[in-house]
Amino acid sequence: MTRKVTVNLGARSYDIIIGTGLLDTLGKRLDELGLGRTVLLVSDEQVWALYGERVGGVLEAAGFKVVAAVVPPGEEQKDLARAEELYDLAYGGGLDRTCPVVALGGGVVGDLAGFVAATYMRGVPLVNVPTTLLAQVDSSIGGKVAVNHPRGKNIIGAFYQPRLVLADVATLTTLPQGELLSGLAEVVKYGVIADASFFAWLEACWERVLARDTASLERVVRHCSRIKAWVVERDETEQGLRAILNYGHTVGHALEAATGYRRFSHGEAVAVGMAVAALLAERLGMLAAPEAERIRDLLVRVGLPVTIPADVDTEELLQALYRDKKVVGGRLTFVLPVNIGEVRVRRDVPEGLVRCLLEEARAGD
Amino acid sequence: MTRKVTVNLGARSYDIIIGTGLLDTLGKRLDELGLGRTVLLVSDEQVWALYGERVGGVLEAAGFKVVAAVVPPGEEQKDLARAEELYDLAYGGGLDRTCPVVALGGGVVGDLAGFVAATYMRGVPLVNVPTTLLAQVDSSIGGKVAVNHPRGKNIIGAFYQPRLVLADVATLTTLPQGELLSGLAEVVKYGVIADASFFAWLEACWERVLARDTASLERVVRHCSRIKAWVVERDETEQGLRAILNYGHTVGHALEAATGYRRFSHGEAVAVGMAVAALLAERLGMLAAPEAERIRDLLVRVGLPVTIPADVDTEELLQALYRDKKVVGGRLTFVLPVNIGEVRVRRDVPEGLVRCLLEEARAGD
Repeated sequence: MTRKVTVNLGARSYDIIIGTGLLDTLGKRLDELGLGRTVLLVSDEQVWALYGERVGGVLEAAGFKVVAAVVPPGEEQKDLARAEELYDLAYGGGLDRTCPVVALGGGVVGDLAGFVAATYMRGVPLVNVPTTLLAQVDSSIGGKVAVNHPRGKNIIGAFYQPRLVLADVATLTTLPQGELLSGLAEVVKYGVIADASFFAWLEACWERVLARDTASLERVVRHCSRIKAWVVERDETEQGLRAILNYGHTVGHALEAATGYRRFSHGEAVAVGMAVAALLAERLGMLAAPEAERIRDLLVRVGLPVTIPADVDTEELLQALYRDKKVVGGRLTFVLPVNIGEVRVRRDVPEGLVRCLLEEARAGD
Repeated sequence: MTRKVTVNLGARSYDIIIGTGLLDTLGKRLDELGLGRTVLLVSDEQVWALYGERVGGVLEAAGFKVVAAVVPPGEEQKDLARAEELYDLAYGGGLDRTCPVVALGGGVVGDLAGFVAATYMRGVPLVNVPTTLLAQVDSSIGGKVAVNHPRGKNIIGAFYQPRLVLADVATLTTLPQGELLSGLAEVVKYGVIADASFFAWLEACWERVLARDTASLERVVRHCSRIKAWVVERDETEQGLRAILNYGHTVGHALEAATGYRRFSHGEAVAVGMAVAALLAERLGMLAAPEAERIRDLLVRVGLPVTIPADVDTEELLQALYRDKKVVGGRLTFVLPVNIGEVRVRRDVPEGLVRCLLEEARAGD
């Protein structure tokens, strides 16, 4: 059943449409938004092979001229050079400032296309059509767009809200299992930071999600979208509350960086980060041990990692922690659970304790 | 006398401080804003030679660490490659998301530094310290930031408001005469689009402005800032009203493009554009002939051009007009005066008439 979640941000409000088989409605939806008639359709080669022609056809049938921008898959595509190619295509294809950029794909495509939409002619309409679980529950909502800098991930970016998010869970049926798992880490995150009963539902029903039961997927996307919308409405540009979405991301990002972004998917790294943060909260007396155990347990059961590999150097990890863009005034930021469904942002965790925990969270200990 | 003009944009409101000798107060002002303690100070070589050490010293005396980013002068510096160098300096210098980028210079420095501030770590505080008349009355206010794309000027950019504008008219005393004139074209523009009595004051007092009388310069900057603030408050992202600021810029931009950005300063091109637009308004019966004459007259008296050189090809100019990013749905946008102090935005001017006017506005005709 198709559902709508609205992100209320005044003049920048937009709808998230969630359902099964929605790709075919994209032309009509764009039409309703009253946008310019030329579309820059950004995708990666894998997603394009599956859905490119179909989506292009839907847009053309609705009277749009489609300029296709298909990039190779992978995080390394998300740089300024690739963005420059997209500006070229947009300009050469005749997109004016009323014409939309449509992001058809996962987080990388969304970030790259979003950055181009945010900066081409000082901003053109952005429409997100996320095709991964991670993008549907997280990155397609809330306006974080970015490309990478040789010295750091997502260092160059903006807060730029889309005009529409169309989440077709049917696209998740073609998703490689690893990517589904990666998205599931963020799904677990929403339970921990904001919703104990959703967390309990996940404990009971995660197998149906992994089996890609459509109704369960819709429920997950709907639920997570609502939480994300609620947070973004209250803190669009991450002045405070929005930081709770970074639960698991402090150690997660550092682990990704320290392993060259090759060894862990984003979700896997975040899963390890969530387990470490739960342990840290437990050690600080903020979280009861059985609750920390429930978090680690669910992650393990769905098949996500919760330990730092023995060969990852703790000092290197610590250095990566301090290079993160969440560091302000040289202090680390940790999002720590006090209950399942409730977290606190702490900037006062002693470095000694962090070092100690990173050791403790190693595989085999 | 130091005066303050506030740009009221809710949470994005900021002050424009106008006076003489204000550079020395920059440290105190940054301090009051409560920003991070590392500053990326962006300037060009010419401005740096005049004011770099002084401003750097003022900031250091106020307890800020200064990371200097000095670029060669000129519009060709405003590209993504240069922006990437500034991201490098910022990241290497340890700027976190609370640390400001300070733009010390003219329009090019402001656009480049502003784009970097808008996109580094999804946006850090921007402080504009404009040192040209054009930057003080126009480009430092209102949040338009951008870099150029090989295929067009300001194609890559954002709307990103500064946190403070510090306009020290003492810096205008060291400005080359050509640059003062370039700024004066935008000053005349404000009179035509919004303020008949200011236009009359300019007719009477332009010589004092060109002689760089401090009180007159302060008056000009104050007056123009107020008009710009008023427009930006009502239409931050150019959905409608803000387009009136483009008076003279339709033909002006095309003339700059058609002559490779070498032959005319921005102000000179805009002066020609304003004269052509006045003539166009006259031909359309929108503007009385004596009023059109007053506009051309003032431009000529201050020393600005009002004619298109005979060797600039009309067809080339027309093509450049259609490549402009103000073109929407293939239609040209003209801002046309109906009185001195009042303009209309028109998207229905017949191409034949435009071609005819471009011929008529040639030197020697």
